[in-house]
Amino acid sequence: MASFHTIKWVDPGLVSMIDQRMLPHQVIYNEYGDPAAVAGAIKDMVIRGAPAIGAAAAFGLALVPVHDTSDKVEIALADLEQASGILRQARPTAVNLFWAIDRIMALVEKRKFTSVAELRDVVLGEAQKIAREDVEINYSLGSQAQSLIPDGAVIFHHCNTGSLAAVDYGTALGAIRIAHEKGKKIFVYVDETRPRLQGARLTAWELKQYQIPFKVVADSTSGFFMQTQKVDLCIVGTDRVAANGDVANKIGTYNLAVVAHENGVPFYVAVPKSTIDLSTPTGGQIMIEERPPDEVTHVGSWQITPDDTPVGNPAFDITPAKYVTAFITEDGIVYPPYKENLAKLFQ
Amino acid sequence: MASFHTIKWVDPGLVSMIDQRMLPHQVIYNEYGDPAAVAGAIKDMVIRGAPAIGAAAAFGLALVPVHDTSDKVEIALADLEQASGILRQARPTAVNLFWAIDRIMALVEKRKFTSVAELRDVVLGEAQKIAREDVEINYSLGSQAQSLIPDGAVIFHHCNTGSLAAVDYGTALGAIRIAHEKGKKIFVYVDETRPRLQGARLTAWELKQYQIPFKVVADSTSGFFMQTQKVDLCIVGTDRVAANGDVANKIGTYNLAVVAHENGVPFYVAVPKSTIDLSTPTGGQIMIEERPPDEVTHVGSWQITPDDTPVGNPAFDITPAKYVTAFITEDGIVYPPYKENLAKLFQ
Repeated sequence: MASFHTIKWVDPGLVSMIDQRMLPHQVIYNEYGDPAAVAGAIKDMVIRGAPAIGAAAAFGLALVPVHDTSDKVEIALADLEQASGILRQARPTAVNLFWAIDRIMALVEKRKFTSVAELRDVVLGEAQKIAREDVEINYSLGSQAQSLIPDGAVIFHHCNTGSLAAVDYGTALGAIRIAHEKGKKIFVYVDETRPRLQGARLTAWELKQYQIPFKVVADSTSGFFMQTQKVDLCIVGTDRVAANGDVANKIGTYNLAVVAHENGVPFYVAVPKSTIDLSTPTGGQIMIEERPPDEVTHVGSWQITPDDTPVGNPAFDITPAKYVTAFITEDGIVYPPYKENLAKLFQ
Repeated sequence: MASFHTIKWVDPGLVSMIDQRMLPHQVIYNEYGDPAAVAGAIKDMVIRGAPAIGAAAAFGLALVPVHDTSDKVEIALADLEQASGILRQARPTAVNLFWAIDRIMALVEKRKFTSVAELRDVVLGEAQKIAREDVEINYSLGSQAQSLIPDGAVIFHHCNTGSLAAVDYGTALGAIRIAHEKGKKIFVYVDETRPRLQGARLTAWELKQYQIPFKVVADSTSGFFMQTQKVDLCIVGTDRVAANGDVANKIGTYNLAVVAHENGVPFYVAVPKSTIDLSTPTGGQIMIEERPPDEVTHVGSWQITPDDTPVGNPAFDITPAKYVTAFITEDGIVYPPYKENLAKLFQ
């Protein structure tokens, strides 16, 4: 386990999260006691990363029956429904948010509850299970990835996809960490990932903790390093994979994939099955979140642009399936044709 | 003329430069009285941009005979030689630095001087001529570009290539400014250009002054905007063009060119002939400057990475000629094959 926690349940009824906005300078844990506050934490990016957002939503829902004072099942169920609506609106792109809420609400709808305590046990139990499974799935995914990561590999990584993006291990960075734990001598180019700097702030912080050698580089250097140095592979996470293999991920993923393609560098997407959305036919149907302008105009408290500078700030982009060499899932590596082979994962 | 000056000579013997490190927050002019200080200003990026660096080197040399106290031609010539050596070491990639120094030193070597006053008139006269010609050449280049910029064009621009990168007008941004002055309704995506943020800080500042509509966007968004919005063309400057058409320019240019190529967006390089270096056969022979780590680890006074984070910080990259749709020069548009057609410019 990592020496920190991204998210965990604290009995009798709090959700504890490391505040990722404060990293790497301060390690602060925030505690949330109601679902609206959890939704706010997701929206403000106290917590981010598709699997972590899923776990946060699940624990957010669990807060409802835990803190119910009515002791009436009907009221608790109505409050749960309302909380699920609030949590769904926190961020639009990562499918795990909806996946986790749907999973819990489907379970709730299937049953008749005779007490709020029973509802609480079911919802909290399922949230705990989602969190536990996330760690297992990530470890399994990272183990599957090992056949693609040779000893001595130089890896280009985008955004943060580590323990901070999940309950533990994470996806792409989890695979990197497992490679290191297995004694492979790997080196990681960590792109800083403007505007939120998840690479420079979070991935660099994690890699230091795991003592994995790395360099932080500007996002726009990926082609330079592929041209002039040995780069063996790129590995990224994703917020949603469409049925045809199009990938929604942190802004800049598409540029990285195109440049990797042009340089003959394999481009892998690490994706737990919960992030594959067969109900979305292609990337064209995925909503891309536009985030606030100050993420571009300011870095920390430092204003970089002139006053009143107009900005564009898409949080994600869509990488067409043709740039993806393979998907790495907890159930194995998936190669093209993706429409067929992604669907097979769920059969 | 712009309402500010990037660089100018101040009689009887000072070089005045706007301090580009302080923009957009403060408009401060620094004055330099000796060539080593000018070399320091180039190195520290008080002034940057290939044409501006050329003018700075020329004025830097002019300071030698102007401030000569020996009144002996031999000593003044030796001091000039020494100053040229110091200035040559200021930055390695932009060819205009060497071009301007060579131009002045060749003129000096061709003649016999009977007094330091005569040497001063020749060197300062040539430096002034270089600065004057730069404005004329840039205006001419920007006018040549107009056939490639339609009314209503949406343009993607990298780094800063405006008046701040030259004596006035600049190259790629000069072409954009002339399009605007001619009444074309254009819109510019300004990428921020990490790590030094020349786009977010300098290009945004210039475009605001010219009242040209724009948005600042993260470098990694170029592909997103080409995929999802109308982008008619990319236009960039360059620090050196090799004989085969390979382009050394600000880090990130290669990624932008590859993504433009993949999206069918024309990619133009605005280049005064002084920046074309026929003595360098290909981009492989161009030295790429590695700049200090704190440009990556810090933004202004704000540290973005954990303490002691290793970084890679190449200041430039090489865009292979095949990604360049055309070069725009003061003497016309140059299309492939570049080896033949760039050479023809000098015949």
